[in-house]
Parts: sequence; C-alpha cells; structure tokens
Amino acid sequence: MSAEAHAPAQPLEIQPHDAPVGTVKPLRARTDTAEIDSTIIHPGSVKINVKGAFIVDQEPSSPPGTLRISSSAGSHDTKDIRLPNHTAVVSHIAVDIGGSLAKLVYFSREPLSREPGGRLNFMNFETDRIDDCIDFMKQLKLKQQKLNGSRPGELCVMATGGGAFKYYDKIREALGVDVIREEEMECLIIGLDFFISEIPREVFTYSETDPMHFAEPRSDIYPYLLVNIGSGVSMIRVSGPREFKRVGGTSLGGGTLWGLLSLLTGAKTFDSMLGLAETGDNAKVDMLVGDIYGTDYGKIGLKSSTIASSFGKVFKMKRGEESQAEESPGLANGSSVAESSEMTSHSEDVDAKDSRPPFSDADISRSLLYAISNNIGQIAYLQSEKHSLSTIYFGGSFIRGHRQTMNTLSYAIKFWSNGQKKAYFLRHEGYLGSVGAFLKRQPRNWGRRGSFEDGIVPQMGTQARDEARSSSPVMDYPGS
Amino acid sequence: MSAEAHAPAQPLEIQPHDAPVGTVKPLRARTDTAEIDSTIIHPGSVKINVKGAFIVDQEPSSPPGTLRISSSAGSHDTKDIRLPNHTAVVSHIAVDIGGSLAKLVYFSREPLSREPGGRLNFMNFETDRIDDCIDFMKQLKLKQQKLNGSRPGELCVMATGGGAFKYYDKIREALGVDVIREEEMECLIIGLDFFISEIPREVFTYSETDPMHFAEPRSDIYPYLLVNIGSGVSMIRVSGPREFKRVGGTSLGGGTLWGLLSLLTGAKTFDSMLGLAETGDNAKVDMLVGDIYGTDYGKIGLKSSTIASSFGKVFKMKRGEESQAEESPGLANGSSVAESSEMTSHSEDVDAKDSRPPFSDADISRSLLYAISNNIGQIAYLQSEKHSLSTIYFGGSFIRGHRQTMNTLSYAIKFWSNGQKKAYFLRHEGYLGSVGAFLKRQPRNWGRRGSFEDGIVPQMGTQARDEARSSSPVMDYPGS
Repeated sequence: MSAEAHAPAQPLEIQPHDAPVGTVKPLRARTDTAEIDSTIIHPGSVKINVKGAFIVDQEPSSPPGTLRISSSAGSHDTKDIRLPNHTAVVSHIAVDIGGSLAKLVYFSREPLSREPGGRLNFMNFETDRIDDCIDFMKQLKLKQQKLNGSRPGELCVMATGGGAFKYYDKIREALGVDVIREEEMECLIIGLDFFISEIPREVFTYSETDPMHFAEPRSDIYPYLLVNIGSGVSMIRVSGPREFKRVGGTSLGGGTLWGLLSLLTGAKTFDSMLGLAETGDNAKVDMLVGDIYGTDYGKIGLKSSTIASSFGKVFKMKRGEESQAEESPGLANGSSVAESSEMTSHSEDVDAKDSRPPFSDADISRSLLYAISNNIGQIAYLQSEKHSLSTIYFGGSFIRGHRQTMNTLSYAIKFWSNGQKKAYFLRHEGYLGSVGAFLKRQPRNWGRRGSFEDGIVPQMGTQARDEARSSSPVMDYPGS
Repeated sequence: MSAEAHAPAQPLEIQPHDAPVGTVKPLRARTDTAEIDSTIIHPGSVKINVKGAFIVDQEPSSPPGTLRISSSAGSHDTKDIRLPNHTAVVSHIAVDIGGSLAKLVYFSREPLSREPGGRLNFMNFETDRIDDCIDFMKQLKLKQQKLNGSRPGELCVMATGGGAFKYYDKIREALGVDVIREEEMECLIIGLDFFISEIPREVFTYSETDPMHFAEPRSDIYPYLLVNIGSGVSMIRVSGPREFKRVGGTSLGGGTLWGLLSLLTGAKTFDSMLGLAETGDNAKVDMLVGDIYGTDYGKIGLKSSTIASSFGKVFKMKRGEESQAEESPGLANGSSVAESSEMTSHSEDVDAKDSRPPFSDADISRSLLYAISNNIGQIAYLQSEKHSLSTIYFGGSFIRGHRQTMNTLSYAIKFWSNGQKKAYFLRHEGYLGSVGAFLKRQPRNWGRRGSFEDGIVPQMGTQARDEARSSSPVMDYPGS
C-alpha cells in the first residue's frame, strides 16, 4: 500500500503532544471540579476559550516543494492549534465530509503537560473509507470520556459537507450519538473568519522570493472572495459575518487533477502526483505561443512562453509517432492501437523515456497542475471583478501547501488584475468547513477582533444567546 | 490511415461545383476582356463583389450529432459561399495558420456554369502537414492561372495566424509569390463582421428543440464578444469595426480535448472523439452533486445532477479497484502497476467493458467535452459581464457544428446569465481568420448594411482609399 496521502491515521491512539511554550501567558489553571460539574449540569452548552490561540509548529523543516511535512503517521495534520486558555470539558468533534476527503477536527486536553488548555487536532480520511473515519470517532469517544471527564453519550458530532447528509444515519447509528448537521458554505465562512481573525501566522501570501509572507491582522476583513478548492471548486462572496452567497465555481478542481493523473500516470497518491509535477516540463506537452508564432505575439502582449493550449502538443505528436510507425515497414504491422495505448501506460518505468514518446508522467503532471490552477485563478479573478472584491482567499484540500500550486494561483491573480489583487492562503486551508462546524454558533464579541455583531447569531438557544451577550472571550453553542 | 478529420484533401483538383440557383438575380454577365485587362494593368488592386453572397448548401442531410457533413474527400468544407455578382479575376488565396489547423479560403470561377460569379471555397489542413497545404496552394496557383486568366507570378497569398510568421519564408520560397501577413485578431473580427453582416443564414442560436435558429440580420452588431476556440481560446471584445481588444482567453481549448483524449482513448481523429462523446455517460466518471450529498443541494440551487467535479469519480474508483486486487489473494502479486496501466489502455476493445474498470472511452470523451465546453462558457460569460457585452459569438475549429458542444456552450451562457445572454454560432466558424485575411482592407459602405465607416480603414494605399471612398458595393485591397 502506498497510500501515504489520504490513509486513515494508524494507530488510533490519541497521543497528547508535548506542550510547546505558548506565546500567551496562561490566564487560568486547569479545569476545576466546579467547572466540570457546571458543564455536566448544562450539557446543552459548551464553552471554548479561543483567546490566545496559536499554531503549534512541530516540524521545522519541509521536503522540497511543500511548506510542511505530511505526517508519516498518515493523515494527521501536524499544524495543531493550541488553545492555552481553554480548560473546560469539550465533548464534541466536528467533521466536514466532502466528495473525496472527510476532514475531522477535535479538541484534546493535555493531561501530561503542566500548561493549561489543550489543542485542536486536525485529521483527514478518504471519504470512500468513511468507515475508518467513523471508527476513529468511536475511539475518540471512548478516549474523550476518560480524558475529559465527560460521560457516555455526551459526545456530539457536528457534521457538514455533502457527507453530513449522505452518511447521517450511518454515523448516528455507529456512534450512538447526536449528529448536528450544519450548512456547508456557512461553516466554510465561519471557519475562515476564525482563521483570519483569531489565529496569528495563519494567513499568508506566496511568492517565489517570499514563500510564506504572513498577512498583517486586519479589522476590515469584509468583503472578500473565498475560493474553496476540493474535488470541485466553490466561490463564495462574503460581505459580512455569516453574510455570504455562493456566486460560482467550477467542476475543474482537485478531483479532476487526481482523476486524470491517476489515469495518465503511475502515481497512486496525490502527493506523488505533486512530486511528479515538481520535476516535469510542461513545454513538452503544452503548445506555447512560441510554438505557434515562432516568436512572441507582441502585439497583444503574449510572451513566447505563454501557454496557448494545454496538452496542445500531444495530439500532433501522437499523430507524428503513428505516421512514422506506418512509414517504417518493420513496424507497420497494424499494431498501432497497441502502440498508442502503450504510450499512455508508461507507469512502470518513468526512466525508460527514450523508447517511449516524450510524454513523461512528470511533464503531464506539471501541465495539468498548471492548467487547473491557472483556470481556477482566472475564474476567481473574474468573479472578484464581477463582485467588486479585492481580497481573494484560497482554501480547500487541493492546495496542500504545494509551492507550484500556490505560485500558479498567485501569478494568475496578479497577472489578470495587473497587480491590483492578491491571493491569500491559509495553513489550515483544508479545515475551514470542519473548524466552522466546530465553532458554529458563536457569541458576539468573541476573539481578537470582535468582528461578530449582535443580531447575526441565528439558531441559538436562549441560554446560549444570553451568554453571547456577555462580552467574555468565550465561545458558546448548544451542544448535545 | 484513419485520418478522416484533418487530412489534406485528395485529389487536389479544383472541381467547380454545380451552380445552385441563386436567390439574387445576376446583375452582370461574365468577365469581359476589358475587365481582365484592367485587373492586369492594376495588379495592386483586386475587386470582389460580395453583394448577394449566400451559402451553397450541397448536402441536405446530416449525420447524427452534427449539423453538416464532413466531406469524404478530406478536409474540403462543403459550405461554399457563392458570390453571384463577382465576375472579376481573383488572383489570391488566404490562409490562417493556427497551432493545429491551417484554414484556406480561395475564390474559384465556375466555367462550366452559365451563372455568373463564382464561389469562395473553404479547406483545412493540419498545421503539422503544412507542406500538404503549400502543395495544394501550388496546384491552386497553376489552376487559377488557367481558370481565371491570371498570369504566372500574379497569385498573392494573404496569411494570418501564428503560422503566417512561422512559415513565412517557407511559403514564399515554395510558391514564389508574395505573402502578405495580416494580424490574427483583426482578421478574425473582419471575417466575423463579414459573416454577420453579409451572409444570410450564417449566424444561428442553438437549442435542443431548435438546433439551428438563424438570427435575424441586425444593424447594431456592436459591441460584442468573440470567443474563438481553436487549440487554445481567445476572447476579443469588439466595440466597432476594427475596434477590438483581446481581453482574455484560456489554454483549455480544442488542443486540450484532442490531446487528452488521444492519450486516454483509442480515438485517432477529433471527429471520432466527438462520436465517442455522443454515446458516453459522463456520470460514470464525473462526481455529481448527488454523489456527494445523496440528494440536491437545494439551499444554493445545485441540482443532484450538477457536475461537482469533472473526473471526480476516477481517482476513488481506481483506488477501490486496487484495494480489491490487494484483498484477493490470487491477484495480489504485486502487479498492480501493470494492472493500473492496463486500465488506461482499453482502446482495442471498447466492448470488453466487463473485465475493465468502468471508464469507457465514450464516458471519458463525454466528460471531457462537457468540462472544456462548460469552462469556456463560464469564462466567456464572466468576460462578457466585465466588459458589458450582451452578445457572444463562438467561432473557431473546435465547434465543428457538433450538437453537444454547442448545447453545452449555449447552456452555460444561459445558466450563468439567468437567461439574459445568448450564444451565437456560425456555419463557417473555423474560417473567420482566413476570410478576414481574404477580405482585408475593405472600402467603406460595402455590403448589405454599410457597417463600415469612414476613417477606420487603416493601412490602405492611396489608390485603395480612393476606391474605398466610392460607395460602390465592391471590395478592394492592395494585392500583390
């Protein structure tokens, strides 16, 4: 099995991480009995203190082409977020089940640490292996009970994404718990607002010379465009807290890249596809302006190196190969179909390029990565123009901190906007929806910038709303 | 050789077609000696009378899925345009050499017909076989001399597209004639304006219930957006006669479809790819909204059948296949690489689906055709919004009168614009550039609608400009 990228985490133990030194002074000590009691007495409301939250950077180095390490333990994302001021019992987990991946977020205490608080943990599973995800949640439920002192049956699952509907009954039955379904787009936006407003060193711009330039916190975050790239792509105009509209999208997304590359190359994981793209030369398969003109097309500002047609060299080169085969008597034995199919199936030996047509897995991967990323970038720019949005955030599991992807998206926004607009990325890009589901139903004035206003806290119970009206930096929602 | 689609025409004879009954009364008889002499004395100027031009429909029936017949003689397009009032010698041909195809337009007299005038003929060649195209032009030169009474050396080649630069010396040397290069975008626009303004029953809208609804002639044709789909896609905002700007484009065009499908399927010609797409079911490879949600995503208006991710089912299904192979002891012999490559090379026997994964050539073709067409449609819509253009023309050799392509493009424009905008198609969609080059440098007030104004006839010599100022419906340009 070479499923490094999307395999479920093994083992299923919840291992508390070594507590890093926080940048924020602990305000409170550990949860006391009264607080646990209070939570048990009022099980409908769980408080999460997000004040002073920060990203736990565990690995200092990164492999080429990525800005982070994929955990060798599977799909456990290493960029946990520490909540140093949260000490209360947390008895819920959140999952965002998309077309390809299920993204899980849960809070864990750190009993071995002398620091207070705990952390948000991030995991992902392939949606096709949803049973593994559910098994993990089962384990989590047992551990949570021990670790956090909650009682059996108390765990609540917040679920969003299409799978929250498709697998609703399955999850409820398997876990024997309540499953609260939340609207996908709203969760994405709540999650993104949380990351923009609350987490330092989360949002960044990318350029080749300055690959991770963290954005300054800003008070005027609205309006903006969120481009969420998963299997498909959704584009959402956000005009205020929980004020949003899906304005468009494209079906040419991560699923397209993964699907086509799994047909065209020997790569079996998305990370290996990205690895191939690192070393490829798209000019071997793409038709460039220079291939058509022999030079620049200066009059309309197209450089010789501009891609005129993605994969535009393939058809003619295949035709050329076949013509040659027909012209060589020794080869003209009617086996051109077999030969041509062989051309697409050179996954066994990428090195044996000389005897094959010049379409290497690497060249194909790079070309398709460029094509999909450029296309998303252009549509994002055009949507931002239509809706007068100058800030564009890119989220979703497609990006994976991959330099080429971010570079292409950034370049597209810069190119089309004549440098007027910027692409912003997030270190937790894949977890907007699950964090949003986790945080759903926030009181006003929580967090660093108090960006949430009164009156836009729908679906809250009376108790929760009362708590929301207090200005304490405590998050609240009616749980199970 | 199964190269039906793009092969050069054989034989190279110029066969005058049977003259159809024109809808316009002949105004003049055949060319007289004085006129021939006049043309010979002033070789710098050739007059073409476009008055009363109409399309010669030779084949009444069409094969399934296309609105016209591809000539079995190769790439000779059958929709000639008859110029019943043109009688002068024409000693020039025009060629638009793109990344994949070279499109040729030439005028021929009809010596066997008792009708006056002649017709414009349309041919295409693969750009990689430019030598065939040049050979054809050589034959044309010899025939033209006999047929039209012109003298050796008189032929002039108007050339546009990238190949006009790349193959400039080659064509000049091979033919021993002048080659006049014209700017690509300008030729596209001149050609399109000609078709819109001069040729009845040329421009149409497409819908499933009314596949070829001819547009009424209109006097206010500007502004509009031209989306020219060849190997790549150019989008051009046209605000008046010869007032235009390339505002965008995408590298995901015809070359992408041809290239990827030649890698993924056994199809060797573009027409066979379109044929495959006719019978395919994209839901076998695309991830639909229903696949993710199990139902509609009603809240944001996405139907269950909406494509969420093109090819989004492939990666997971391939993974599933491989897991199964691993779990079956008899198959788990480490040959999964070979097995997976076999999955992509099922070109020999499309029928033997049962033993293969469910990605048929037909399903793949349909999915990719949808993806590319939808994407072009969306970007075209967004560009039309940005530039406040309500009319969108689709041209270029990608469309080929193919119903699914036109349906997808039409649907995309209708969907995104909420029914406010329409997609227009042309029967000579692939020949905008070559006809534009053929017609380059028109006098004002020519044609049906007199849409060309004074003062916007650049690059004309004094003689041509003087002739342009006469209001006769005669086209004029400085030739060789």
